[in-house]
Amino acid sequence: MQDIGIVVPQCASFDSPLTLKSGAVLDAYQLVYETYGELNEAKSNAVLICHALSGNHHVAGFHSEDPKSAGWWNNMVGPGKPIDTGVFFVIGVNNLGGCHGSTGPASIDPKTGRPYGASFPVLTVDDWVESQARLADRLGIGAFAAVVGGSLGGMQALQWAISHPQRVRHVLAIASAPNLTVQNIAFNDVARQAILTDPDFHGGNFYAHGVIPKRGLRLARMLGHITYLSDDSMAKKFGRGLKKGSYNYGYDVEFEIESYLRYQGDKFAAQFDANTYLLMTKALDYFDPAHAHEGDLARAFAGAASEFLVISFTSDWRFSPARSREIVKALLDNELKVSHTEITSSYGHDSFLMVDEHYHAVVRAYMRNVAKGAA
Amino acid sequence: MQDIGIVVPQCASFDSPLTLKSGAVLDAYQLVYETYGELNEAKSNAVLICHALSGNHHVAGFHSEDPKSAGWWNNMVGPGKPIDTGVFFVIGVNNLGGCHGSTGPASIDPKTGRPYGASFPVLTVDDWVESQARLADRLGIGAFAAVVGGSLGGMQALQWAISHPQRVRHVLAIASAPNLTVQNIAFNDVARQAILTDPDFHGGNFYAHGVIPKRGLRLARMLGHITYLSDDSMAKKFGRGLKKGSYNYGYDVEFEIESYLRYQGDKFAAQFDANTYLLMTKALDYFDPAHAHEGDLARAFAGAASEFLVISFTSDWRFSPARSREIVKALLDNELKVSHTEITSSYGHDSFLMVDEHYHAVVRAYMRNVAKGAA
Repeated sequence: MQDIGIVVPQCASFDSPLTLKSGAVLDAYQLVYETYGELNEAKSNAVLICHALSGNHHVAGFHSEDPKSAGWWNNMVGPGKPIDTGVFFVIGVNNLGGCHGSTGPASIDPKTGRPYGASFPVLTVDDWVESQARLADRLGIGAFAAVVGGSLGGMQALQWAISHPQRVRHVLAIASAPNLTVQNIAFNDVARQAILTDPDFHGGNFYAHGVIPKRGLRLARMLGHITYLSDDSMAKKFGRGLKKGSYNYGYDVEFEIESYLRYQGDKFAAQFDANTYLLMTKALDYFDPAHAHEGDLARAFAGAASEFLVISFTSDWRFSPARSREIVKALLDNELKVSHTEITSSYGHDSFLMVDEHYHAVVRAYMRNVAKGAA
Repeated sequence: MQDIGIVVPQCASFDSPLTLKSGAVLDAYQLVYETYGELNEAKSNAVLICHALSGNHHVAGFHSEDPKSAGWWNNMVGPGKPIDTGVFFVIGVNNLGGCHGSTGPASIDPKTGRPYGASFPVLTVDDWVESQARLADRLGIGAFAAVVGGSLGGMQALQWAISHPQRVRHVLAIASAPNLTVQNIAFNDVARQAILTDPDFHGGNFYAHGVIPKRGLRLARMLGHITYLSDDSMAKKFGRGLKKGSYNYGYDVEFEIESYLRYQGDKFAAQFDANTYLLMTKALDYFDPAHAHEGDLARAFAGAASEFLVISFTSDWRFSPARSREIVKALLDNELKVSHTEITSSYGHDSFLMVDEHYHAVVRAYMRNVAKGAA
């Protein structure tokens, strides 16, 4: 089992206006993406990987010799890996509104010559799927063998089945949900308020002030991080361990978990765009395919024609197994083909990014069947 | 069943130095408190109520004709109520370091003539118990019939049994824990970082600047609030309800939960002291009676001589029933008398403040037995 090696991002520019769910229009935009493996002659082996809140197009392989430059799902995607790049032509794309190369709030608005900032429109999962469909057109891909995603990525995969039933043969929705619970929305709002009320946010136009709202972004990330882990996995990794061995009775780092979270927060705040963070959390909040059908999720999937693999993780309390079961129920109500696995894992929501023998075996087996249909 | 009516806080000043767990010394301090009911001749019917993070001495009764001026546990404490002020002499005290009248960071340091601010020492649950013991001395109370508390208040009640085994006949530890989980510490640290990094915090000396770190305190409260509720109770109360009926695709309030949380955050930030909030969360983090006994909680209670009532709530994910069972186990290991109830409730950690028939019946029955021993 080898890695893909060094990969180079590509860029696609689109100059026909994209009308968004909100009614706003993006006149032109670019998407940065990576591909791994070869598109077959029938163009039937393409797999789209959708990323979650802080992910990007760099799914697999490396950007340099530095092992730290590995893609965020390098354990899942590669030659001989569960999503086998020896078999599939895999595409990772940075979502519109992102901060890794695709057009987003930090990009220059050609109309003003300045960063979009606050004027960048709010995006939804539907909008992302439309922008991804245009990328598929550009690459000559009529239908994906599979669209795959975890968390917010899983929501995009599900939306593909709703928006473009004929363009996606298989959907893999991992650690996902048919919408956010109110508790999830609440956590998102605290994170957003941390950013929005940071004096360095300047109403979203901080670029012009030469500052970044790093306090707010740091808090948002610290909070998010707690909710991606399970109480158990934190207990195993950190427990009540003390950084200096004894209590210091002050506000410096006391427990190891504090050191870890602050480090993660600082690192993230230095490299992620605050406006993109806001956008991503809003897209999560808005996703709710049942909303247009009086809350009836089954009706939302009435036009779907894909086959589905739905995976959840026992310790995931943000996108709990119960939420995946709601998806499965709605799909079965439509007599769609669904495989469903609940993986026993202690890593919380982050489990979908981890190596777990059973989890990877399930994806591997499922993708082997996808390959048969794509041959 | 009547209420206590209008109550008037009292104040006790102490001028013998109090050496704190941290090694710091408070030369003098005052405690504000309220009492309800009459101390009997034998002084055997006194009950101390310990408050949680944002509570205070105003446990029951009213400060004015305004029904909103009711004490925070007015449903539990009063004539004919589960903690019956017709039977018991009940004391509520604002913890040292508080912001409701007891000496705290916002108080004037007599040495400087300015608010203590950052120079106010970090406090622990042990310190609170010592300060409360001095108040008991002042009131001529040798031993409490019961010390009662929920959450952080329950930790104080437990510490009473450890620090002063002969001075507390019964301990009621409700929705409490033998220490915080690492997840709880993590949430506390995010809340603290929100305050500490608020530019208006000024290293804790914001009083001199005529500002308060309301952004940070607001975020801390919003986050705390989420964790005091259960996902279910939030879903029942708010669901994914929209404030204006439809999506607005912007950063103003979209969902009702956002409106609620921001309102709660704003209200709290306007009235609570940021330094006190920091202090309270640190006291929570530090509480860990097993720490001095190689993690053996049973040994921590080896000297205890009280009887115990331990209550937990099924939907409380911050101080879960499992944590109460740890307390019960450690007490039973010492052959102490323990009553233990797990109440089925959907209100999360806040359940201990709510009216629940079964919960109140258990406390009522237990306190009736306490009364027999106190007669």
